[in-house]
Formats: sequence, structure tokens, C-alpha cells
Amino acid sequence: MPLIEYEDALPEVRAVYDDIMETRQTDWVNNFWKALAVDPVTLRRTWESVKEVMAAGALDPLVKELVYVAVSVTNGCEYCIASHTASARTKGMSEEQLVELLAVVGMANETNALATAYGVPVDDAFRRS
Amino acid sequence: MPLIEYEDALPEVRAVYDDIMETRQTDWVNNFWKALAVDPVTLRRTWESVKEVMAAGALDPLVKELVYVAVSVTNGCEYCIASHTASARTKGMSEEQLVELLAVVGMANETNALATAYGVPVDDAFRRS
Amino acid sequence: MPLIEYEDALPEVRAVYDDIMETRQTDWVNNFWKALAVDPVTLRRTWESVKEVMAAGALDPLVKELVYVAVSVTNGCEYCIASHTASARTKGMSEEQLVELLAVVGMANETNALATAYGVPVDDAFRRS
Amino acid sequence: MPLIEYEDALPEVRAVYDDIMETRQTDWVNNFWKALAVDPVTLRRTWESVKEVMAAGALDPLVKELVYVAVSVTNGCEYCIASHTASARTKGMSEEQLVELLAVVGMANETNALATAYGVPVDDAFRRS
Amino acid sequence: MPLIEYEDALPEVRAVYDDIMETRQTDWVNNFWKALAVDPVTLRRTWESVKEVMAAGALDPLVKELVYVAVSVTNGCEYCIASHTASARTKGMSEEQLVELLAVVGMANETNALATAYGVPVDDAFRRS
Amino acid sequence: MPLIEYEDALPEVRAVYDDIMETRQTDWVNNFWKALAVDPVTLRRTWESVKEVMAAGALDPLVKELVYVAVSVTNGCEYCIASHTASARTKGMSEEQLVELLAVVGMANETNALATAYGVPVDDAFRRS
Repeated sequence: MPLIEYEDALPEVRAVYDDIMETRQTDWVNNFWKALAVDPVTLRRTWESVKEVMAAGALDPLVKELVYVAVSVTNGCEYCIASHTASARTKGMSEEQLVELLAVVGMANETNALATAYGVPVDDAFRRS
Repeated sequence: MPLIEYEDALPEVRAVYDDIMETRQTDWVNNFWKALAVDPVTLRRTWESVKEVMAAGALDPLVKELVYVAVSVTNGCEYCIASHTASARTKGMSEEQLVELLAVVGMANETNALATAYGVPVDDAFRRS
Repeated sequence: MPLIEYEDALPEVRAVYDDIMETRQTDWVNNFWKALAVDPVTLRRTWESVKEVMAAGALDPLVKELVYVAVSVTNGCEYCIASHTASARTKGMSEEQLVELLAVVGMANETNALATAYGVPVDDAFRRS
Repeated sequence: MPLIEYEDALPEVRAVYDDIMETRQTDWVNNFWKALAVDPVTLRRTWESVKEVMAAGALDPLVKELVYVAVSVTNGCEYCIASHTASARTKGMSEEQLVELLAVVGMANETNALATAYGVPVDDAFRRS
Repeated sequence: MPLIEYEDALPEVRAVYDDIMETRQTDWVNNFWKALAVDPVTLRRTWESVKEVMAAGALDPLVKELVYVAVSVTNGCEYCIASHTASARTKGMSEEQLVELLAVVGMANETNALATAYGVPVDDAFRRS
Repeated sequence: MPLIEYEDALPEVRAVYDDIMETRQTDWVNNFWKALAVDPVTLRRTWESVKEVMAAGALDPLVKELVYVAVSVTNGCEYCIASHTASARTKGMSEEQLVELLAVVGMANETNALATAYGVPVDDAFRRS
């Protein structure tokens, strides 16, 4: 699929690119959005959704990026690992935090498989009253 | 697979159960470990590994639990979602944090699929020098 | 693994290649089959199965290709995305159809994760009498 | 997680429920939305997104439901299989179409694994000029 | 989906059931086949394929069952874990072998995630000349 | 992430590399470990765990490597497929065994999807008394 640069983009695509750059306080747009731009409807909806979900709230934005990396590793999405690791670094993630994150993701994938393999029943204490 | 209770457990299994309860400051052991107890070698190795990985470090233990939930949802492991959501609550997770976490996990699964579908190439800016 | 070209292939492999080209009305065989050709038994069984499954029936062949792309994206199989997207185009898929397909696949991956995360019970109305 | 019924719902949740029932021309809301209602922001965003993605366009709504089922099977989401199979039936899917769909999904999961296992390189003919 | 019993089955379905029972030297058919029987074409093709793939060859049938369990755990298919664990026991798997198998599957899921997370490049020594 | 060579490694990393080479009776270390070496704690724990799990026991080491390949294919981990296929060859796997293994993995992925799609209930005979 082609990547659509700003100068070749439709007005509704440029509007999304402008909002991405303003929200992130940067002067460039990463390839994910340039690829989605062949479908301006999906581009807009996805950007609006990501902006809403990743904003500061009860969880801080760095924690949300760490969670994004964890899901991306589990799904084996190389692009997403690269882009969200970079975003997490921008938001202050240290290398010590990164390697601890990946250790947790590795361990979780192991114990997920073991719990599934052994067919472990959910403890009553884990069910909410 | 059977669940092995403390009173029926081998000494090496009891030793792991004791360490779980002491580390967590609780008086019970959840079913995951009682299932693994049919294989004392895997029980011990898995517990020692989880204890090391989930301890406070550059990331705080609550963040690690949130990451664990994120991986477990992505893998569809019902037991793991239940147990690590409960652990996260014990470590202070609010309901607002939980729903934000799940929103991020949902979104990440969507954009992972889109990035894969569109075959997005990794930006040079995301590759480290 | 090597790719086995027609001129280097065993007679039973050539017979499958010939049937692929005749069924598809083309003069070439794509790499998937050339890779499987190291195992003529699997090559034959897989081709016969794919031919049976993908033939016109209650669903038309283009819809079946769209479904194939959806599964391939969800599994992250780059080769399969490329080959079945190409097949779908050959069978008439427009670019508008492709981007709508990928939007559905993205959305389905998100709501699958949310339904799993929230542990939603199946509605009685969805269970068939 | 609790299921929130209409009579117990906040006004912004009721507004979404009303739009779901009007859009679908039904008098009930399925459990997925009642579970998401604990997070009205995610409920609204997810419903608006699903409504936009699943509307008639270049692909007809039944084909989109078939694709949804295919992704849900591949991810192993029991709730999603049940709900989107029911939706597909409502939109006219026959039992013959359902079993053909599932046969394609099964086959795609097999050949995805084989293509990955054999490390098949993408054919030049599948790369677009 | 309904389960189709022998006495209610079409002749072509009964023929498959008979071959399953004769091949396995048993007097019953497990639910997987009774579910697939709503689609006699898929029933026949799937059974013929499974019979061919699982027969003794360069790998012995027990090793093939262990591999089947490993894939089923990784995919989180509860039915498949149960049925192939039972088949493996029938073919002589001991409890010691089962727990070692599951320990390998757990470990493989962890190191798969770590290799993906770290983006490890394939060693030249692993590429075949 | 960087790959850390022996000459640039910390003493605790060198100790792991030395144990890898001695255990495997080789004079080199593959990239997986050189990548993990940025996190000496995870390197050590992962190596000790892999060494324990993959040692000869009730299952022989070749069977364990076959299982590792099966999981790696199912997860789509290219690095892991390459490294564990190479290890299996070192331990005596023939090409006939490899192609049979991959045929089983392919078939298992198909029937896993079918069992999930059809929602097959576990047979009473598969539940242990």
C-alpha cells in the first residue's frame, strides 16, 4: 500500500495530519497514518479514537504506551512495537523500564499458556460479589 | 488436572506455597499454583521467575499487573485476566484505571491489525542509531 | 526451505502444478506451492483441500478470498495477506472494498479483545433452540 | 463485570442504547454493550465506530458480518462468534453459507501456519507496481 | 451447533463415522466429528486429512499427538487440548511426559515473546546454504 | 536492540555465555542470548529455565525441540522457527520428520479453528475421573 505524503494528501487527510502534529507537538507524521490515508474515513476515526484513548486520565500516558507495547509484542506486530517503544521513550521510559516491561510480557505469555494448558478453574475469591 | 491442597502436598510443594503466602502476605494460595503442583519442578521455577519479574524495580508492581492483564486479554486467557485483575485491585487499581486499561488494550488490538494489514514499513526515526 | 521449480519437480509435483494452473487459468504457480513441494503428500492434500473449499458454492469465490484475507491479517501472515489480496483483486475486488474489509478486520480485533476483557456472557437470544 | 440494564443506566448510556435499537430496528440491546456501559466513553466511541464500519458501503453488511465471524473464530472469542453469527443470520446468511464460511476459516488457519512454517517469500507478482 | 448421532446421520456421514471407529479400533465417535457432520463435505475432507497426517511415518503417532497438544494450548482451544491429551494418553503418554510437554510449551511461549520483543535477527548459521 | 558480543559483555553475562557454550558443546552463542544480554537478570533466568526445561527427561530432547518449533510456528515467531529448527537438526531431525511435523502443525491449526467455530463441547470420556 502506498504512503501518502502531506503535499499529495486530500484536505480531509491534511486536517488529520495537522491535528496529529499539533497534538504531539512534532513536525512529522509517522508511516502508520500515511498508510491509512488511502482510506480517509478510517484514518479520521482511528486517529480520533487513539487520541481519546491515549490521553492522560486515570492512567498516565506513559503507562498507556507500556501497555500498547505489551499488546503489540503479544500480537507480533513489528511496526507497532517499534512505534510505541519510540513513543514510550519520548514520554520518559528508561531502558531499565523497557527491559522490565519485556520481562513481564515474556512471563505473562508463559503463564497464560500454562493456565490454559492446565485448565485452571477461576478461584471464587477472584469473582466479584 | 487436579488441584493439590496444602495438606496433600509434598514438602517441596509446601515450601513453595509457604513462600507464596509469605511474599504476598496472605493465608491462601490461588488455583494456578495448586494446578502446577503436580509438577513440582515447574511449580518452583515458575514461582521463582514470577516473584523475580513482578517485584518492585524500575516499574512499580501495579504497572506490572496492568501489563499482565493486557497480555492476558490479548491471549484470551480467562483465568489470567481474573487473577491479575484481582492482583491489580489489591495493589490499588481503581475502576477508572481498569476501564482505561481495557480501552487501550482494545485499541492496540485494532491498530496492530491495521498496521499488519497495510504492511506499514517502520519509520527511520523509530530505528535507533 | 527451497522453492522447487517445474523443471526440477517430481512427476507427482508437476501434476499438482498443472492442476493449479489449469484451475486458475494461469501459466505460473506461486511460491507457496513451490515451497510445499518438498513434501509432495502435503502439497497434494493441501491443494485438493484449497480447491474444494474455495470453489463457488453458497458463497461466491470473491467473498471467500475476503474471508481468507481477514484470517491472514488476524494471524499476521504477511505472505498470505499478499497472496490472497492479489487473488481477491483478480476476482474483482475494488480498492474501496479492500479498505472497508480492513476496517472491519481492525474493528473486529478491537471488539474481540473488549468482549474477552469484560467476560461478556452470551445472550440467551444468541443460543439457538 | 456487571451488565447495566436500561433502567439503571446513565442518560449518556441510554442515548447509546436508544441509537443501537433504532439503528438495528430492535427492542433490546445485547450484553456486549451492557458490559461496556460501565465506561460510557468507551461505549459511545465503540458503538459509533462499529456503526460506521458495519454500514452498507462497497461491501454489503452480510459480507461484513461474515468477515467479523472469521476474525472472531481466529481469535477464539466465543461471545463474538455467537453474536456475529446471529447477526449474519438476521441479515440472511443460510446454513450452507455458514458451513462454507467456517470451512474457509479452517483452511486459512492451516495455510497461514504452513506459509509461516516454510518461510515462503512473497512473489514479485504479488507486489504492486 | 447440533451434534449428529450415528442413528440420525446421512449415509455419507455414517461412512466417515465407520472409518473413524475402524481406524481407531473404538466403538464411539467424539463430538468434534458429530459437530462437523452438519457439513458432510468438510467432515469427509477433514477426517481424510487428519487420518493421513496423523498416521505413523517418520514421526511416531505419539509424538504427533504431543505436537497437536502444543499447538492447541498455544491457540487456547480447550476442546482440542482435552481431546488430544486423551489421544496421547491412549497412545502411551505418561503423566511425567505430559508435564514436561506443558513446561516446554510454556517456555516456548515466553521465549517467542522475548525474541519478538527484542527483534532478534536470525543468525547466519541458522540459514541453510 | 543491540547484540552484545562476548568481548563487550559484563562478567555475569560472560558466565551465562560460557555455560551456554559448555552445555551445548559449541564455541558460539546465538543472537537471542546476545540480545537478552542488555538485561543480565532476564538473560540468566531465561537461560537457567530453558536449560532445565529442555534437558533430557521423560521426553527426549529432540521431541522437545519439535514441540518448540510447533509453538513457534503457531505464534509466527520467525527467529524461533529458525533457531529451533536448526537445534532439531543438530539433534538428529531428518527432513522427512520436519515436513511431517509441519503437516501436523498445519492440520492442528485448522482443526483448532473448526472446534472453536463449532463450539464443540468436551466429551465426557475426555474428562478424567
